[in-house]
Amino acid sequence: MMQSENAVEDSLHIRKLEVTDKEKGFIELLRQLTVCDSVSDEKFKERFEEIAKYGDDHCICVIEDVRSGKIVATGSVFIEKKFVRNCGKAGHIEDVVVDSSARGMQLGKRIVEYLADHAHSMGCYKVILDCTEENRPFYEKCGFKKKEIQMVKYFV
Amino acid sequence: MMQSENAVEDSLHIRKLEVTDKEKGFIELLRQLTVCDSVSDEKFKERFEEIAKYGDDHCICVIEDVRSGKIVATGSVFIEKKFVRNCGKAGHIEDVVVDSSARGMQLGKRIVEYLADHAHSMGCYKVILDCTEENRPFYEKCGFKKKEIQMVKYFV
Repeated sequence: MMQSENAVEDSLHIRKLEVTDKEKGFIELLRQLTVCDSVSDEKFKERFEEIAKYGDDHCICVIEDVRSGKIVATGSVFIEKKFVRNCGKAGHIEDVVVDSSARGMQLGKRIVEYLADHAHSMGCYKVILDCTEENRPFYEKCGFKKKEIQMVKYFV
Repeated sequence: MMQSENAVEDSLHIRKLEVTDKEKGFIELLRQLTVCDSVSDEKFKERFEEIAKYGDDHCICVIEDVRSGKIVATGSVFIEKKFVRNCGKAGHIEDVVVDSSARGMQLGKRIVEYLADHAHSMGCYKVILDCTEENRPFYEKCGFKKKEIQMVKYFV
């Protein structure tokens, strides 16, 4: 049993998003989070390259299950350059999702820690995110505390 | 009296941040919002240029009172490129502040509307921000609704 669990753990590789991840179910995974229509290969590549231009200022990470070749978790962080806090930087975590078939393996925690570590290594004084009250205990386990409220204005 | 009020209104110009705004009290204004140490001219210029590289993807707006030559309000918005929402974009409003001597003139509303309009014109499907419960009625007047909660992790 222990051996089998290790085998599962060993097959879950965390790394940055690659352009070939579209074929590995990346868009289908995002669909578990919010509205996400099918995206053409061309449009995916275009958006991938737009984000890649920001280099380490916009990092999307994924966990691939190398046994199935499927992306089973993802999240992103971008680095905002400010004038406040002595020209400080803030990390913004967005779009964290774990595949429904891969829950209970702490993959969400691995994603959030990877993104927070990235923000820290980029010199951010803080990293922030918005979530539902329901997900608050999860983020508290990741070392976050509730601060303010999120306001939104939709254009569509 | 009416003439005098118009004169005040006419002297409040809204525009994008310029590198010369440091001399016009931009940093002192930010200090009314949060921790903001004095910034050397060199460091200010460096950060200004780093942000300018993002072009319209990171817009800082200010209101200058041209009578006094002082910056009396500011706010920023940056455009996050996503894969969700059919490769959509989200605007993030940050660091909105109005000088304590210039409150009650709807300058905050002008700033927020300018930033939301910018996000809309950039093709964002939404614009979001975090604020205190105390500031919620102000943002509701600007057309925002409460959605989620903000979580934060500080590194310093």
